[in-house]
Order: sequence, then C-alpha cells, then structure tokens
Amino acid sequence: MEYNLLSVTLNPSLDREFVIENFESGNLFRINNPSNSNMEPGGKGINVSLMTSDLGVTSINMGFLGGFIGNVIQTKMSNIKNITTNFIYCTEETRENIEIIDPVQNKISEINSMGPFIHDEDLKHFLKRYKSALNLVDHVLISGSIPPDIPISFYSELFSYAKKQGKTTYMEAVGPHFDEAIRENCPMIVRPDLRKSSRILGNNLETPEDYIKTGKEIIKAGARLVVMSYHVVGDIVVTEDGAWLFTATEDIDRSHLFGTGDAFMSGIVYYIINNGFDYLEAAKYGMAAAMSSTNYIAKILGTEEEIERSKTKFSIERIG
Amino acid sequence: MEYNLLSVTLNPSLDREFVIENFESGNLFRINNPSNSNMEPGGKGINVSLMTSDLGVTSINMGFLGGFIGNVIQTKMSNIKNITTNFIYCTEETRENIEIIDPVQNKISEINSMGPFIHDEDLKHFLKRYKSALNLVDHVLISGSIPPDIPISFYSELFSYAKKQGKTTYMEAVGPHFDEAIRENCPMIVRPDLRKSSRILGNNLETPEDYIKTGKEIIKAGARLVVMSYHVVGDIVVTEDGAWLFTATEDIDRSHLFGTGDAFMSGIVYYIINNGFDYLEAAKYGMAAAMSSTNYIAKILGTEEEIERSKTKFSIERIG
Repeated sequence: MEYNLLSVTLNPSLDREFVIENFESGNLFRINNPSNSNMEPGGKGINVSLMTSDLGVTSINMGFLGGFIGNVIQTKMSNIKNITTNFIYCTEETRENIEIIDPVQNKISEINSMGPFIHDEDLKHFLKRYKSALNLVDHVLISGSIPPDIPISFYSELFSYAKKQGKTTYMEAVGPHFDEAIRENCPMIVRPDLRKSSRILGNNLETPEDYIKTGKEIIKAGARLVVMSYHVVGDIVVTEDGAWLFTATEDIDRSHLFGTGDAFMSGIVYYIINNGFDYLEAAKYGMAAAMSSTNYIAKILGTEEEIERSKTKFSIERIG
Repeated sequence: MEYNLLSVTLNPSLDREFVIENFESGNLFRINNPSNSNMEPGGKGINVSLMTSDLGVTSINMGFLGGFIGNVIQTKMSNIKNITTNFIYCTEETRENIEIIDPVQNKISEINSMGPFIHDEDLKHFLKRYKSALNLVDHVLISGSIPPDIPISFYSELFSYAKKQGKTTYMEAVGPHFDEAIRENCPMIVRPDLRKSSRILGNNLETPEDYIKTGKEIIKAGARLVVMSYHVVGDIVVTEDGAWLFTATEDIDRSHLFGTGDAFMSGIVYYIINNGFDYLEAAKYGMAAAMSSTNYIAKILGTEEEIERSKTKFSIERIG
C-alpha cells in the first residue's frame, strides 16, 4: 500500500504550552525564554501520526482545518517526515488548547476554544476524499471528539466503509459517537478516552469488574482488543482470551503523563503494522510505548530500543 | 507620492484577546463563543496603519516578522485595504501579547512573549529597504519598542535618513532609543509612551510643570508637536506656541481605553496628511479620534463624522 495509516482527526487543535512560574490571574507575565512557549499540532488522530512518524509509519491525515490556526497546523505538519496532509478547509478558526503550566505551584490553567462549524457540503467533500484515501492504506484510525454539528452516526459511517474494505480499524474517543460506532460498526482496536467521562455504553466504569464487563461488551460487538486506562498508572486490557491489568512499576513524573493515552495507541498501531495481529503483545507494546513516552515532553515515543527497554517497567496480572 | 505613510514597527506582535468570566489559575475554561476570542496584528506602528487605513491613509509597513505568528500577521495585513507590507523575515517567532479579559472580576491577565532575535544581516537588509521605501512617501512614523539586540541609536539613525529627505516624521515610544532619537534627530511629532515609564530625557513626569518642562525640551530639540497622556483621561499638548491640557468631559468605558494612545497618534497623522501643519488643530483631531475610538473594541477610529462629533467631548485649557 502507498501509506501505512489513514488517520482521521475531525476536530484538530493547536496545542499551546506556556511555562509560567507562579501564574495568577490579574497580572502581567513575560516569557523571556522561547523554550517556555511551545506549539504543536494536536487532536488524537494527529497525535498518533506524529508519534509513529518517527518510527517510520507513513500516514495520511484527514479532518477539517480552518483559519489562521488551521494554517499553522497545516504548515507544521507539512514539514514532518512520513506525514501527508489531506485536510478539508473551512473558514472558521481551528480550535486551540492553551495550557499555562506553573511548575512552582504545580498547577495547570487551560483555555480551550471550540473549533469551526462544519457545513454539510464540507462533510460531503470529506466523505468523498475519505473513501478514495481508503484505497491507499491497510490501517484506519479515527479518534478524538467530533465537532458539535456533525451527526453522531458519522464515526460509525466512516468505520462501515473501512470495514467493508477489510481495513484494520482503530478508535480512541468517548461520547455518543463512540458508543454508536461500537454498536453499529465496531472497530478492531478500541481505547475509550476515559479522561473526561467514565461512562461507556451506558456503564459507569468504577471497579475492575465494571471495566472487564464493558471490555467484554465491546469485544462482543466486534472488537479484538480493548484498552482502558485504570486509575493513573494502570491499564485494563481485554481480548477474546481474557482480561489483564497492566500496572506501572516505576515512578513516573506525573507532569509527563499528558498524552500517554495517545502514546499507548501509537504503540499498538506500530506493533500491528509491523508484526500483525497478536493483540496481547500489541497491548504490551502500547504500554511500553506509553512508559517510554513519559521521558519526553514533546509528542515522541522514543526509539524502538527505548520502547523495548520499557517492557520491564510494568507488571501484568491476569484478572479475567 | 505612491503611499501616504511609511510605518515602521521593529517588534510587531500578534494581539490576542480571550474574554473569560471568572478566570482563575488552575482551572479549565472553554471558549464557546468565537466572538470571545480575537486576534489582531499589533505593535504601535502597525496600529496606526490599521486605524488610519479605514479613513483612506495608504501605508507601507516595515519591521521584522518571524515564524508562525509572523505568518499570521502577514496574512491578516495582506487582506486589509490600503495596507502594503514589506517586512523582513527572521526564523524565530514574532511575539504574542495574550490578554485574558475577565469582565466579571474586572481583571486582565497578560502573557507577553519576547519576539525574535534580529541578526546584523537582517538589520542591514532592513536599512536598505527602508531607504528605498522613503522615496515612496511624505510621512514616516517609527513607533514602539525595539528588539533588545538592536543598537539604541537605531531610531535616531532611521529618523536622520527621513529628515534629510524632508519627510514629516512621527514617533511614539519610550526608553533609551526614544531619548537618543530626540537628542540626535528629533522627529516632528512626538508622543512619549508613558504607559510603562514616566521617565523621559532623564525627567520624572509627575506634576503638570514636569510635563510642560519636558515638552518644551523636546520642542527645543526640534519637535513641532509633543503630546503626553496625563493621568487616565487627559493629555498635555506642547507646541512652539505654548502648552494646553485636554481633558475628557464625557465618561469613558475604561475597558475601552486600551489603544487610545495609538488612536491619538492616528488622528494626528490623518489630520496632517490631509490638512497640513496646524499642530494644535492636529492635536485636537488626535484627541477627538482617541475619544471616538473608545466606542470600538477593535482597532477602529470611527468615521470622519464620528471623530468630528467627538470634538465636543473634551475641554481645552491653556496651561503654559
């Protein structure tokens, strides 16, 4: 195939970081060191493309970009090896996620904007391009939030085309569009995004039993691998063969945990593209990639050797 | 002449505004209404070009732009009527002035970045282009801060070329580069930027007498008109003929006072381009433009009629 991965991010963002000591509202702060100000393309699909690009995974990136912020993302991504962009342009501004990180008070302040309104025509245009892009890849990842005006059936619809063509499908998201995709056209690899909601398919995820039950429901719907983050440093992994609890056994700098979900999915994508369908092994590789990525602030997994070494940094316990 | 004004902003900024109610550090805030997020090109020279462009003043804009933020400014300005851009490009990012405006707590939080490092070559390149641009205009405005690595004699040097060619020269700034320009190659219209410092030519500006004394020093150095903001809603104006206190007689929404200095200078520039050298009248028009601009949040003076009507909104008292 021409590319490894088709990566869909319907609602990309420009992720901005400002490191400011003792940040408080009502004052003026100057950033005199350029390394305390950072901007990177973001959104869950784009993050996986960025993180796997270093390891040689080639991806086509699709979704909607708009305005000046959209141009910044387009330009930044055009300069990254192994990344091809194929975004639909709209007039309103792409969203920004601004984080003000205060390392002294150990606080993060966030300002998130909304993202552009997607017109029906743009949606049709996207769908047409998506269908032709499917012919260029074996793996399709659709992740993140959907713009509010897009029908919640849209993820399900996108997966239906990919599945008909026998593609390997991946999803990380949460919300009604996620639930509907699971029920109607379940992708093969599923990672609920539990940062903002612990409600999946109508279940509230609290105890390990809740996780295992929900994981099994998703497997029954057609998934082959379900990964759910459990508390801060654990993950519950469910396949057709059972359920496992992965637990980090090394201390992790908590300020580096941001984005480990994307790193986990990136590890899985990389593993399956290169080694095929051993789902438990893919999940172990994902966990190792997530552990390895905590060594970096940027959207980087580390080298293959670093990921390999990180396999010793977590324990695996069969729980179902 | 081909253009009315050559407008120099050595250190432009992208001015960003986020309106967030009850903004406090450590929390997540969502901007769901696009009108609560705004970005405009900024820097004192650019502001005058933006404000006068609506009234038909054509300007060439020079200075240094860099990185993604520089591109946003370039693109935004390219789309504005009567504005021509002729910036030198550098690799580091242009600065951003981020304002988080909290209308509930009546607080403003600001994050200002630094702007790019200017290499000697870029400075030479700028000077070459500046000299040829001088041939296209009668009026030259040089305003705002200078990047830290540029010699403090640079403003003075720029004004010396403009004065040799008989251009009408304008400056609004503060600091050693401002003082040196006054002493060595004093421009014709001078507005000290008193927001950040009240120290001008070694004098501390406190009483009206301090203002008049300093204004007369600047006139003696070669200026024909000096305008100094006095407290929040007044301005002291000094010409060869005397000194006047302008005082707003209407209540002004204080949240709209931001940028009235640029509006004042814009009114003066517009008046002199269209009516010639009646300096006290030019200052009155500047004050009226400043009053009129408080009706807008964006960088807008209002129509000629609105400015004319604003002439009744302040009193004039001779004080020296």
